[in-house]
Amino acid sequence: MAGRKALEVYLDLLSQPCRAVHIFLNHNKIPHTVKTVALRKGENKTPEFTSLNPMQKVPVMVDNGFVLTESDAILKYLATNYKAPEHWYPHQPERRARVDEYTAWHHTNIRPHASKVFIMEVLLPRMMGQPQDPVKMDRALAQLSETLEKLESMFLKRQPFLCGDDITLADLLAICEIMQPLGGSRDILKERPQLVTWKTRVQSALNDSFDEAHRVLYQLQDKTKAKL
Amino acid sequence: MAGRKALEVYLDLLSQPCRAVHIFLNHNKIPHTVKTVALRKGENKTPEFTSLNPMQKVPVMVDNGFVLTESDAILKYLATNYKAPEHWYPHQPERRARVDEYTAWHHTNIRPHASKVFIMEVLLPRMMGQPQDPVKMDRALAQLSETLEKLESMFLKRQPFLCGDDITLADLLAICEIMQPLGGSRDILKERPQLVTWKTRVQSALNDSFDEAHRVLYQLQDKTKAKL
Repeated sequence: MAGRKALEVYLDLLSQPCRAVHIFLNHNKIPHTVKTVALRKGENKTPEFTSLNPMQKVPVMVDNGFVLTESDAILKYLATNYKAPEHWYPHQPERRARVDEYTAWHHTNIRPHASKVFIMEVLLPRMMGQPQDPVKMDRALAQLSETLEKLESMFLKRQPFLCGDDITLADLLAICEIMQPLGGSRDILKERPQLVTWKTRVQSALNDSFDEAHRVLYQLQDKTKAKL
Repeated sequence: MAGRKALEVYLDLLSQPCRAVHIFLNHNKIPHTVKTVALRKGENKTPEFTSLNPMQKVPVMVDNGFVLTESDAILKYLATNYKAPEHWYPHQPERRARVDEYTAWHHTNIRPHASKVFIMEVLLPRMMGQPQDPVKMDRALAQLSETLEKLESMFLKRQPFLCGDDITLADLLAICEIMQPLGGSRDILKERPQLVTWKTRVQSALNDSFDEAHRVLYQLQDKTKAKL
């Protein structure tokens, strides 16, 4: 890595995919610099950030001038280029295909459904002052429940992690989404012992990097509890 | 490949991601068997198909007993395991990351927005007999337009294909979605010369395999025209 410019990542730790990137870098001790982009302050919409990512989204990775967006692509690139332990994104074709299958599924299932609950319960009412809509909230919770059901019955069927015997990028992306509703003090895993066991397993595999990335979310949870 | 069981794919050619898999297999002359799963007849909900894919979705690939879902993962697996020309899914890390970046973006942009226009214009009113909602239709068209704008200004900026100088899995997934509204005779590229040029480029790179996969959609378009 001699002569290589420092790796930079643009993150907001209240964003789920940003936490996944943060955990991956810290857990695997990949040297990097974090540039904070506070979404609630609109820092993703400044001309400077927009010229870096016209989509105005985080995370963004800049590796020696190579600009990459989309957490899924960033994690796969980092796993490959920074020689992280192979279990994260296995070389063996069938095992790799399982991770690609989960990440594809993730985008239209866990990601939108866990996000929506947080947006409706925390972001809109508490941060933007909009009234909560109980009908929409119930629908969002029902959709999330259906998705969690699939996570258990399909991906965690007969195996300890989402894609097999060891932790992969799939577990990392999933856990960060599943943690999000906690910002509103909502424990979405309450009646799902299989997912609780999986969460404990993922958390202990990730160790300190997990709590470090989730500190901002824990603070938000404390504030919510204080208000309740 | 001696002794290898035949590769099987479960497809409905009215489904965009199924067409992408179909084109990839035929264009690259990968021996395979197609099993048709007619979605409009509910063949994806039979107990037999459900035991193959509990998500009840197509495409599904079965390669010597290995069952894989999600078109994105299937295409990457096939490109890697069946040694298709490297341009489809490049080995070079930055170029591969560009394809992963597009496919991640695709799931929450081109895929839902082009689908929605087809669903609202063809599937719901003509196949299910539901009345069309002009307000929702306008909103869907506006969303699609915004997404096509991004496709031009971000991915096709200064390059002939979505991820560089040659065709990749990204172009294949994108073209199959962009063709879909044509089933309702809607030309969504009318005022987008840059995308029209790109489409011509993709189509001529794919040759016969493109028209073969789109035959069912062309028939639907003819029916629509006859009714107008």
